Amino acid sequence: MYEEISQKLIRLIEKGVLRPGDKVPSVRQMSADQRVSVSTVLQSYLQLESGGYIEARPQSGYYVRSDLRPLPPEPDRSWNNPKACGVEVCSTISDVFREARNKEIVPLGAACPSPELFPNTKLHRMMASIARRKGDSINVYSFPPGELPLRKEIARRSLSYGCGFSADEVVITTGAMEAINLSLRAVARPGDTIAVESPTYYGTLQVIESLGMNALEISCTPQRGLCVDNLEKAIREHKIAAVLCSPNFSNPLGTMMPEENKKQLVELLAKHEIPLIEDDVHGDLNFEGHRPSVAKSYDKKGLVLLCSSFSKTLAPGHRVGWVTPGRYQDEIEKLKFINTVATPTLPQLTIAEFLKTGGYDHHLRRLRSLFQNQMQRATQAVVQYFPESTRITRPVGGFVLWVELPKGVDAMALHHRARAAKIGICPGPIFSASGRFRNCIRLSCGVPWSDRLENGLKKLGALVR
Amino acid sequence: MYEEISQKLIRLIEKGVLRPGDKVPSVRQMSADQRVSVSTVLQSYLQLESGGYIEARPQSGYYVRSDLRPLPPEPDRSWNNPKACGVEVCSTISDVFREARNKEIVPLGAACPSPELFPNTKLHRMMASIARRKGDSINVYSFPPGELPLRKEIARRSLSYGCGFSADEVVITTGAMEAINLSLRAVARPGDTIAVESPTYYGTLQVIESLGMNALEISCTPQRGLCVDNLEKAIREHKIAAVLCSPNFSNPLGTMMPEENKKQLVELLAKHEIPLIEDDVHGDLNFEGHRPSVAKSYDKKGLVLLCSSFSKTLAPGHRVGWVTPGRYQDEIEKLKFINTVATPTLPQLTIAEFLKTGGYDHHLRRLRSLFQNQMQRATQAVVQYFPESTRITRPVGGFVLWVELPKGVDAMALHHRARAAKIGICPGPIFSASGRFRNCIRLSCGVPWSDRLENGLKKLGALVR
Repeated sequence: MYEEISQKLIRLIEKGVLRPGDKVPSVRQMSADQRVSVSTVLQSYLQLESGGYIEARPQSGYYVRSDLRPLPPEPDRSWNNPKACGVEVCSTISDVFREARNKEIVPLGAACPSPELFPNTKLHRMMASIARRKGDSINVYSFPPGELPLRKEIARRSLSYGCGFSADEVVITTGAMEAINLSLRAVARPGDTIAVESPTYYGTLQVIESLGMNALEISCTPQRGLCVDNLEKAIREHKIAAVLCSPNFSNPLGTMMPEENKKQLVELLAKHEIPLIEDDVHGDLNFEGHRPSVAKSYDKKGLVLLCSSFSKTLAPGHRVGWVTPGRYQDEIEKLKFINTVATPTLPQLTIAEFLKTGGYDHHLRRLRSLFQNQMQRATQAVVQYFPESTRITRPVGGFVLWVELPKGVDAMALHHRARAAKIGICPGPIFSASGRFRNCIRLSCGVPWSDRLENGLKKLGALVR
Repeated sequence: MYEEISQKLIRLIEKGVLRPGDKVPSVRQMSADQRVSVSTVLQSYLQLESGGYIEARPQSGYYVRSDLRPLPPEPDRSWNNPKACGVEVCSTISDVFREARNKEIVPLGAACPSPELFPNTKLHRMMASIARRKGDSINVYSFPPGELPLRKEIARRSLSYGCGFSADEVVITTGAMEAINLSLRAVARPGDTIAVESPTYYGTLQVIESLGMNALEISCTPQRGLCVDNLEKAIREHKIAAVLCSPNFSNPLGTMMPEENKKQLVELLAKHEIPLIEDDVHGDLNFEGHRPSVAKSYDKKGLVLLCSSFSKTLAPGHRVGWVTPGRYQDEIEKLKFINTVATPTLPQLTIAEFLKTGGYDHHLRRLRSLFQNQMQRATQAVVQYFPESTRITRPVGGFVLWVELPKGVDAMALHHRARAAKIGICPGPIFSASGRFRNCIRLSCGVPWSDRLENGLKKLGALVR
């Protein structure tokens, strides 16, 4: 409830109705106007304060922060007539994940949630207890499809996003990245063409490249994600073996694809018998309202391979992911065996137990609110320190921001200069197989807000200028 | 020392010098003859007893077991003029690993060591202690190349098999299977031809198939492994992108390639600039003498990618493997990120600590002796229950036996009948891309000897007849 109040006020601020330095309606007045309790309004104001939108002045009330600038427009560049091309992504990506382990680098690069956001003590206690209880029986290969208790929990939760598959329809993997690898190997052959969102996660492009497949980039908007009309046109003009897409809080745009588009996408692909590999790793990280449904929920033909993991929400270090492969179940089980034989047993059982008894939903509520706050703070810092013609996305989930810098700024050069200044970022071109997004960057907001991050973005803004 | 005595006696038994029912020299006499202590001879006789070779008769001494039959010859079929062919391996393999989890099936199929052979309590205690000590810091991605403490321990041990690489030259993987996958993806492209041993591990053939590569089978003998001369001929006649080979206790033949052949193999490939993917997962499991060296120890050009894991020796459930990729280091690190991003952090740190302080060598000595015993018992049972013209390998390490059944026996039909009788085996044809080995089977000896296994082999022998 309080989040609705916050959003209303943010919209007023963004539209310039409330300007920097303006007094915000008093708590009492707002409570009366909106017919909500005083404590709800207070909770909203505290959220806005921690989000960097308003500030409390003693004995006077709340004001829009005077250093707050109106948000710039969202990036919006769509295009058509994509060309299938061999994927060639540079060594920049290795830089990104090498930097991620370097504590001297301001962590705005790799999309790694900070470990202190997770209930590690609880997880470790559960792990030790399972190991004691189960003894020898956990030091065996967990052959595909993987541990049943975990598959059951995943199946149980699938109701929350419009599915309702069974434990038998789940295959456990070593993270979502393996799930995507296996899915591509199951539905396409070397030389085949995979349609992807553009911009798209660089790891996906590398997988496609390494399997000798081609990527066909379909343009996206931050508001609606993959342009289904453009995809339809592309299907008429190209032989597309599969579509790989992340409808919920895509990476890097952060888009939540509207429900009608998800449905339209699945129906289009069903008509042409084209499999959809759906990456839902951020699906649990909605900031408000209900957990969004997945495209898979519209799948009637078993053509959607839904891939996800617990790496963004609970346990990056444990590497537990999964796929529900529809009609490709047998093939995926076989490929899982071929690729890594099995996923470690104890991490699977630990996560199963946490899902069953550890308060995963409670943990998610806390995490969503933390990520939302981190995204708001980073957004504010970009507005404050970057040139005026900068554009920035408004994700309603996940923890990455996409920033379009003024024309002429070279994101690759910026990346190198930022590295020299010990600031990690992801330059736009690594999110494209055809070298687009030369003036864009992705900022990861997986780490609790701090002066260090604020100063990092300040320095970065200076480098952009 | 006592093992030498045992081997001498086994040879005497195999050659028929000592026949079933014969009295073995007394402990005192043997001690005098061989100039070793009485206790050494006793230890040897106890080993032979538990291996099923001799039996103690009260007040009388030791006798060759009267139900002991002389060992049949080893299988030996080499050929030449191999053809490159797309790999097509049947659903039998899925059967094998599904059966592995079914406790009703006599476990002679999948090559899974029994979990009670491993120091699980110690491993779990170490894991719990590391988790407590390290707290949040282990719930992060362990980006390639993986955890330094583990890479250091692996590098330190490499001296024992003739190498001496550094921690920086190791990349941690999710088991050796991932290491082999990444290696193939690093050195070859879809459509390329990979030379493999024949027979070879079925998982390897499946990987090659799934990557759209072709397998070229090079014939092997149980005594010397891959025929290097045949390989040389194949290199003249085919364009070979890489060789994949397991010189130490290969699977399924169990061969230890002689040192001079390892050297010859590496030199041949160096001359032609062909990379060698060396699978050494069984290298630590020698029954006697020194741990054998690896082909990698003769590598001067960085062309050998040495792959191994702890899955056969310590921790199948933890899925920790590695590769030392020579000149392909950067490519392998990149591919590791693409394939599964990272290997779980805690299992890596746990194994590192076990290697450092847990008595890995002590554990290995015990494990080798257990496997040797299991192999001897299984060998004896085959000799006893299978038709006379059966042939069987004599591995000096690892835990798989290769059995050549009388001509005309169809191993695939036998597999199906054995399944119906709840006995798991691996039929020979799954170890070939071209359908060879129709009358062969592989028996896994990873489980402590028991009446159940004895009866399983007895039933199997009856099915063969």
